[in-house]
Amino acid sequence: MENFTYSNRTKIIFGDGTQSRAGEECKLFGTRVLLHFGGQSIKKSGLYDQIVDSLNKAGVTFVELGGVQPNPRLSLVHEGVELCRKEKVDLILAVGGGSVIDSSKAIALGVPYEGDVWDFYSQKAQPKRALPVATVLTIPAAGSEASDSSVITNEDGWQKFGYTNGLLTPVFSILNPRLAFTLPAYQVACGAADIMSHLMERYFTNARSVELTDGLIEATMRTVIRNTPRVLAKPDNYDAWAEVMWSGCVAHNNLLDTGRIGDWASHGIEHELSALYDVAHGAGLAVVFPAWMRHVYLHDINRFVRFAVEVWGVEKDYFNPDLTALEGIQKLQDFFVSIGLPHNLAGLKIPADRIDEMASRATGDDKWRLGNFVKLGKADVTAILKSAV
Amino acid sequence: MENFTYSNRTKIIFGDGTQSRAGEECKLFGTRVLLHFGGQSIKKSGLYDQIVDSLNKAGVTFVELGGVQPNPRLSLVHEGVELCRKEKVDLILAVGGGSVIDSSKAIALGVPYEGDVWDFYSQKAQPKRALPVATVLTIPAAGSEASDSSVITNEDGWQKFGYTNGLLTPVFSILNPRLAFTLPAYQVACGAADIMSHLMERYFTNARSVELTDGLIEATMRTVIRNTPRVLAKPDNYDAWAEVMWSGCVAHNNLLDTGRIGDWASHGIEHELSALYDVAHGAGLAVVFPAWMRHVYLHDINRFVRFAVEVWGVEKDYFNPDLTALEGIQKLQDFFVSIGLPHNLAGLKIPADRIDEMASRATGDDKWRLGNFVKLGKADVTAILKSAV
Repeated sequence: MENFTYSNRTKIIFGDGTQSRAGEECKLFGTRVLLHFGGQSIKKSGLYDQIVDSLNKAGVTFVELGGVQPNPRLSLVHEGVELCRKEKVDLILAVGGGSVIDSSKAIALGVPYEGDVWDFYSQKAQPKRALPVATVLTIPAAGSEASDSSVITNEDGWQKFGYTNGLLTPVFSILNPRLAFTLPAYQVACGAADIMSHLMERYFTNARSVELTDGLIEATMRTVIRNTPRVLAKPDNYDAWAEVMWSGCVAHNNLLDTGRIGDWASHGIEHELSALYDVAHGAGLAVVFPAWMRHVYLHDINRFVRFAVEVWGVEKDYFNPDLTALEGIQKLQDFFVSIGLPHNLAGLKIPADRIDEMASRATGDDKWRLGNFVKLGKADVTAILKSAV
Repeated sequence: MENFTYSNRTKIIFGDGTQSRAGEECKLFGTRVLLHFGGQSIKKSGLYDQIVDSLNKAGVTFVELGGVQPNPRLSLVHEGVELCRKEKVDLILAVGGGSVIDSSKAIALGVPYEGDVWDFYSQKAQPKRALPVATVLTIPAAGSEASDSSVITNEDGWQKFGYTNGLLTPVFSILNPRLAFTLPAYQVACGAADIMSHLMERYFTNARSVELTDGLIEATMRTVIRNTPRVLAKPDNYDAWAEVMWSGCVAHNNLLDTGRIGDWASHGIEHELSALYDVAHGAGLAVVFPAWMRHVYLHDINRFVRFAVEVWGVEKDYFNPDLTALEGIQKLQDFFVSIGLPHNLAGLKIPADRIDEMASRATGDDKWRLGNFVKLGKADVTAILKSAV
């Protein structure tokens, strides 16, 4: 087991009706809130009114900024920073999914910083402070509600960069499974793929003696695999949604990193897909992950056999462990397809003509290597993407 | 799944050599520390000198109070409160196991309180504040290093009461598996029983739809079951100790309570054993838990079958699930015996003549019921203890 430091400050307020606590919880951090959200769905569903009512009751005033898109954009972040400064905002309340939360985190970093917030994402500067961010989660997927990271897309060059810093960990997050009932099926599936990917990025490690976290990750994966079909079949299945929502949070709150170093190459490759083609992150991951696995599984056949047996219930072939490993990977891909996700780039409407460009971008033209489990060069990324056309 | 609120502020600093960070971490909370510990073992092992060196380097001054006993006593807590007030201590650094940490938490509550700190344990008052507590853990067992609870024994009447409050959650805890290498085998076994008990108290619940936490608890139990024999066979097995130590912390940091309500009757019964006979907490639990299980298993045979199959690898008898359940309970008891713990009260040197008195104390002579999974009366507790003579 590797040495580690673990802490997570996010107060999780989980369950039916918990959005009514937004106001009193915000009040602990100030009286001026930026309400940040995406489209009109929270107004149609009544959630917006419930939050506003809760803020009013607690004596918290707010300004609002909607319009966050999937793969959230730097330009809206800039707008949010200006608004927060002008209105002297104390706290940003993100109401939405990972894109809204990530956008909120970027705004929170930008408000007290004199330069451009992109400096942090492009590793040109380190922040000293940030506004507190809180969330009301509507989409179980990104895990941003209790994570220390944020991913933003800069339209100037379509660069999609992540940034990680403890300052970004939300101070509280409200998780009500009922808020997910109205999600479109495709978005549910993309969310499940995102959660599974967060677990798999951590699972595939070279660290030895990580039995506890191996077991915790596998238990979380099995929970997602069992419950995603249930919520797709019956979108108002509260209990199944509760399992998916809590799994999505646990998958990415850093507990499951403890003592191990994850891979993250598949995320790196997928970021290039969604930067160039604006595909849904989860759908991109559903295509990239099985392709990545088939490229690297011989690096640690035992771990892939364990994945097949413990997560997917594959019967172990003691004399042909490679077949067991490959069957596990196929089960993963079949799962993604069964919940409505594509199995190749064509299914994402991504042609094969810019694979070289994406592989170059993902590896800085071989200036750096991608991933930790296996360190990938440009040729590896090219091969992975070509295997997925 | 039940609604819940979850947060845990403890910063975990885990791994080899991490005790050298004690000073710099203490410095974040002040410059005057009470160093609280048990016997002379930390001086013999060199740990005391390492901590003092780290405090000195960070410019943190300290006073010390040793002498904490297993089942920590209120009288020493009173002494610690006086000392902290006199020396204007900012932070209490517990160096030891659960008893030292629980004693530190009680002192932390007492310092800013005008009355007797026992008022909190006896539910006569609620604290408004407490000094921060930090820990350097030497015994993986109680989980107090990241928990919000403390158990103290009042010599006046030999009452052993627990108290739970978020104020008691340590601000940081240093977990170095190497510090456990020199523990006596019996203490190792008691620690493992304590960890298993924390997991089982949470596992046996009437809450429905708690798949994720069921899976997480089972994974943690399996890790403890696999690794305890390894550390007993080879006390310097760092990796196995790392699994046990991290499991012991995760078992009791409240994550595994989320969405469910645990039982805690076995802890209540064991508290009476150790209050009257001063037995080791873990040893008492090893006797009480299987007896409790055989008394209640018919309340939810499916959960006990799951316990047998998922935790102990018992082959399911589809037509006689009660046999599967009982085999799981037997496996638990066999495990405790295999690591050197007693299987009955006689093995704890507890005679049968005060069972009625203990059952009375545990249930307030039937004024209250013990436990949540099954609510036990005095007759139940009597039957459980009699079955374990």
